[in-house]
Amino acid sequence: MTGQARDHGGDLDRARATYGGEDWIDLSTGINPLPYPMPQIPPHALNTLPTATDMGALEQAAASAYGARTGVVALSGAQAAIQLVPRLRPAGTAAVLSPSYNEHAASLAAQGWQVRAAHDLTQMAGADLAVVVNPNNPDGRLWPPEVLARLAGDVGLLVVDESFADPTPHLSLCPQLHDLGERALVLRSFGKFYGLAGLRLGFALGGAKTLEHLRTLSGPWAVSGPAIVAGSAALSDSTWQTETRTRLARDADRLDALAARAGWSLVGGTNLFRTYDTGDAMAARAHLARARIWTRAFPYSAGWLRLGLPGDAAGWNRLEQALAGSGQ
Amino acid sequence: MTGQARDHGGDLDRARATYGGEDWIDLSTGINPLPYPMPQIPPHALNTLPTATDMGALEQAAASAYGARTGVVALSGAQAAIQLVPRLRPAGTAAVLSPSYNEHAASLAAQGWQVRAAHDLTQMAGADLAVVVNPNNPDGRLWPPEVLARLAGDVGLLVVDESFADPTPHLSLCPQLHDLGERALVLRSFGKFYGLAGLRLGFALGGAKTLEHLRTLSGPWAVSGPAIVAGSAALSDSTWQTETRTRLARDADRLDALAARAGWSLVGGTNLFRTYDTGDAMAARAHLARARIWTRAFPYSAGWLRLGLPGDAAGWNRLEQALAGSGQ
Repeated sequence: MTGQARDHGGDLDRARATYGGEDWIDLSTGINPLPYPMPQIPPHALNTLPTATDMGALEQAAASAYGARTGVVALSGAQAAIQLVPRLRPAGTAAVLSPSYNEHAASLAAQGWQVRAAHDLTQMAGADLAVVVNPNNPDGRLWPPEVLARLAGDVGLLVVDESFADPTPHLSLCPQLHDLGERALVLRSFGKFYGLAGLRLGFALGGAKTLEHLRTLSGPWAVSGPAIVAGSAALSDSTWQTETRTRLARDADRLDALAARAGWSLVGGTNLFRTYDTGDAMAARAHLARARIWTRAFPYSAGWLRLGLPGDAAGWNRLEQALAGSGQ
Repeated sequence: MTGQARDHGGDLDRARATYGGEDWIDLSTGINPLPYPMPQIPPHALNTLPTATDMGALEQAAASAYGARTGVVALSGAQAAIQLVPRLRPAGTAAVLSPSYNEHAASLAAQGWQVRAAHDLTQMAGADLAVVVNPNNPDGRLWPPEVLARLAGDVGLLVVDESFADPTPHLSLCPQLHDLGERALVLRSFGKFYGLAGLRLGFALGGAKTLEHLRTLSGPWAVSGPAIVAGSAALSDSTWQTETRTRLARDADRLDALAARAGWSLVGGTNLFRTYDTGDAMAARAHLARARIWTRAFPYSAGWLRLGLPGDAAGWNRLEQALAGSGQ
């Protein structure tokens, strides 16, 4: 019972409460600001329980999009998978590549795991369960899939959180997952790359027994009808996926250029977010907040600030002006 | 790891696979066939993570609709609560008022509880955890809230699943819940009465510690943006609620009259579903299925058949004709 004390991006409530104003630009998450166009939701997706047929089609679309030859389980967000992962094995020792998304260690610890922070992969060997976010959030560190496949042989269960992997599909472990049996589990987020985080949709891919266990733990009807409809369409739309990867790469470059002019150095990132060393993250964050631009700082770093991508010209202009006015 | 072998209503896939045809009338669930009109979903509810403000407004609307002076936790369906209930206390002895909705006993057993079937409330005393579905599914048995409040004093934790209580709000334990502290937890389904089961929304109400524990177990962003928007509107719309209660009562009477003419006797039900003793449930179910009307039978009863309410004149006509032609 640890409560809800952990910080997250997307907490615009806090921005409004502290700084006032309504017309905020939320750069505090890594959610694509130009979402997949929401399809029309047919009445049956709202009015009836999701059928096995519709769930199966969604999971098939996900397996295909992720290049996996394993099974797939759809869940109500990658976060839902993170809540269930600690229950897939008896609580033991867990190594979490750190720093990273704070919910992994918290969820494991809340369920009795002895969690240690690992600063590189070599520190993870021997753990009963190991978690690597690839590419990592917030520092953008990444590991080639063959390196992670080897790590899977050195730990009880390797969990690779690929929540930000859509812009760089060649880095995904999914195509190799069928060789790893029950030793590896990949988590995917739907909402970030497709810009539909409110729908709550994510996936787990891995060995058949582990996935069956996840299905039992999550129970029937874990995913909403609107998520099934939108997910099935978006995951099958390779044209949109390719165009979006191109645009995100261009916009990430553009953000790096603005940050460089402000004197910030790139720590790392993905094409959905960038993390900079600003020297003084609290000051940089407050400066941007006064321009009603919300960003993400981290308790473990005095300098790091993470920014998502603006979604339109007005957003880019406001960010550019705010950064031009930041104390140089 | 018990797999997904349990039968449920809403499995139209099976109906189609067995009997063919597309234009099925699904009476296999207790979902209101005339749903609350789906509000326009604003972009932020799709594109961004749900905020604490929006979740708080939803939970406030639920507390008010259910007449509760306790806290409320929104979850992705009453089923999501059923998955978490076994983890609220150390596994011990659980008594489940039976027969009833099969997921309660299954979820408890899967998490190490010793589950016994209780056939009335007197058989539940002394259990570490007791589950009563009120009104009960499928037999419609019901217990006045003051009787359940007394039972809460005789068990470790009383869980009252009020998934079908919306048509009969005077039977709800919610208004008395604040006197019961951490001894009682009420589960509510949104999708059944409001006819929006695809949205996946439900609630738990009870003591502050138990609810905080549920929040920790479910994790952040457990409910989708569309569910928050529709739930906040529907739970605040007392005019629609009153009209719907009146209509459901009228339609339940109409269904009883049709069933009586077919020679079926009423076992019980709520105004969202009715359960009849048909003499031969398999034959009655197959007869209706040949008219592409899907209903729910139960493994523990040779005679019981449960029917939801048709939603339009065509549905009532087809049911009437099929029942008129059933072997008298």
